[in-house]
Amino acid sequence: MSLHRMKETFKVIRDLVRRNRSYRRFREDAAIEMEILEELVDLARLSGSGANRQPLKYILSCSGETNALIFPNLSWAGYLKDWSGPDEGERPSGYIIVLGDTEVTQSFGCDHGIAAQSILLGATETGLGGCMIGSVNRVGLRQALEIPDRYEILLVLALGTPKEEVIIEAVGPDGDIKYWRDSAGKHYVPKRSLESIILDAYE
Amino acid sequence: MSLHRMKETFKVIRDLVRRNRSYRRFREDAAIEMEILEELVDLARLSGSGANRQPLKYILSCSGETNALIFPNLSWAGYLKDWSGPDEGERPSGYIIVLGDTEVTQSFGCDHGIAAQSILLGATETGLGGCMIGSVNRVGLRQALEIPDRYEILLVLALGTPKEEVIIEAVGPDGDIKYWRDSAGKHYVPKRSLESIILDAYE
Repeated sequence: MSLHRMKETFKVIRDLVRRNRSYRRFREDAAIEMEILEELVDLARLSGSGANRQPLKYILSCSGETNALIFPNLSWAGYLKDWSGPDEGERPSGYIIVLGDTEVTQSFGCDHGIAAQSILLGATETGLGGCMIGSVNRVGLRQALEIPDRYEILLVLALGTPKEEVIIEAVGPDGDIKYWRDSAGKHYVPKRSLESIILDAYE
Repeated sequence: MSLHRMKETFKVIRDLVRRNRSYRRFREDAAIEMEILEELVDLARLSGSGANRQPLKYILSCSGETNALIFPNLSWAGYLKDWSGPDEGERPSGYIIVLGDTEVTQSFGCDHGIAAQSILLGATETGLGGCMIGSVNRVGLRQALEIPDRYEILLVLALGTPKEEVIIEAVGPDGDIKYWRDSAGKHYVPKRSLESIILDAYE
């Protein structure tokens, strides 16, 4: 494949990666079908796993009742000090909870990152969006859903139809990476430059 | 979007995830341009990062000389006891070394999994393929490339034009997840079923 053709083909995945932002406000009345959550987990299932151990398990919810049990155990957007999370009506329509099965291995490496990225790219392709949440009240969530101790709670993926605009900007000279919102509620995410993250390039 | 339409749109990402296997034998004479490695890192740059800290840095190589310094520090396919890694001529044409910058944070969460999946999906889209290698002689690699102590070596992504066939199969009743090769050299990867990895589904 020519270099030109290669660069052309990057367009699909590049567009998907670019559109796949962390969304925290949703059209809560836009339901997610269970079948869609299953398809998303299937993308994770077919993704790579350290030593092919596949230690991840999943809990899915698109039920209003269960969503209401999950939501209070999540922390939202730590840098937005005057915003404690999405209001009723703007909350996620579904969740995928990513668990590590300690009977398979005690060390999950970065398997949950691989899985979460596959799931969110798939969600983006269907017009959904979401957020990987690592700041979770694990004791509370375990109790609420009666998750056996055997499973470590690794990540909660919140999913829904995005109801906010998220804009990538360059990190400024002060190096501040904290995301922020303007007065219109638009969400800005500073990203480091390509030059600043490539340490060496041998060609 | 209708459920039918949603399922239709999954086809692109599903096809990409399915084709993105771990490849360990390559057409070493098919060079990778530095520009392609940079485009791949750009996909990682635009991907999610815990608390948007973006602690990952990258070393890129598409130079035969540097590739030869990296290669001896990698372990290949732990389950294939009679195969110590790709022969000369079948080795990767390029590498992306994923580092964690300890001056940004001490804890990289699963950021390297997110980044690695974006990179490998991008590589797959261009007809390349690769392997995430976590089993690395970190002391040796650090010495070989003079990587400062400030950077933790998280993963090495080996990249090239795949020269092997990789087939997904179902995990058998014995639960064995070890990948294996048949006498023709085809590589088989047992994957757990969707049913076995979904613990609960609330709808």
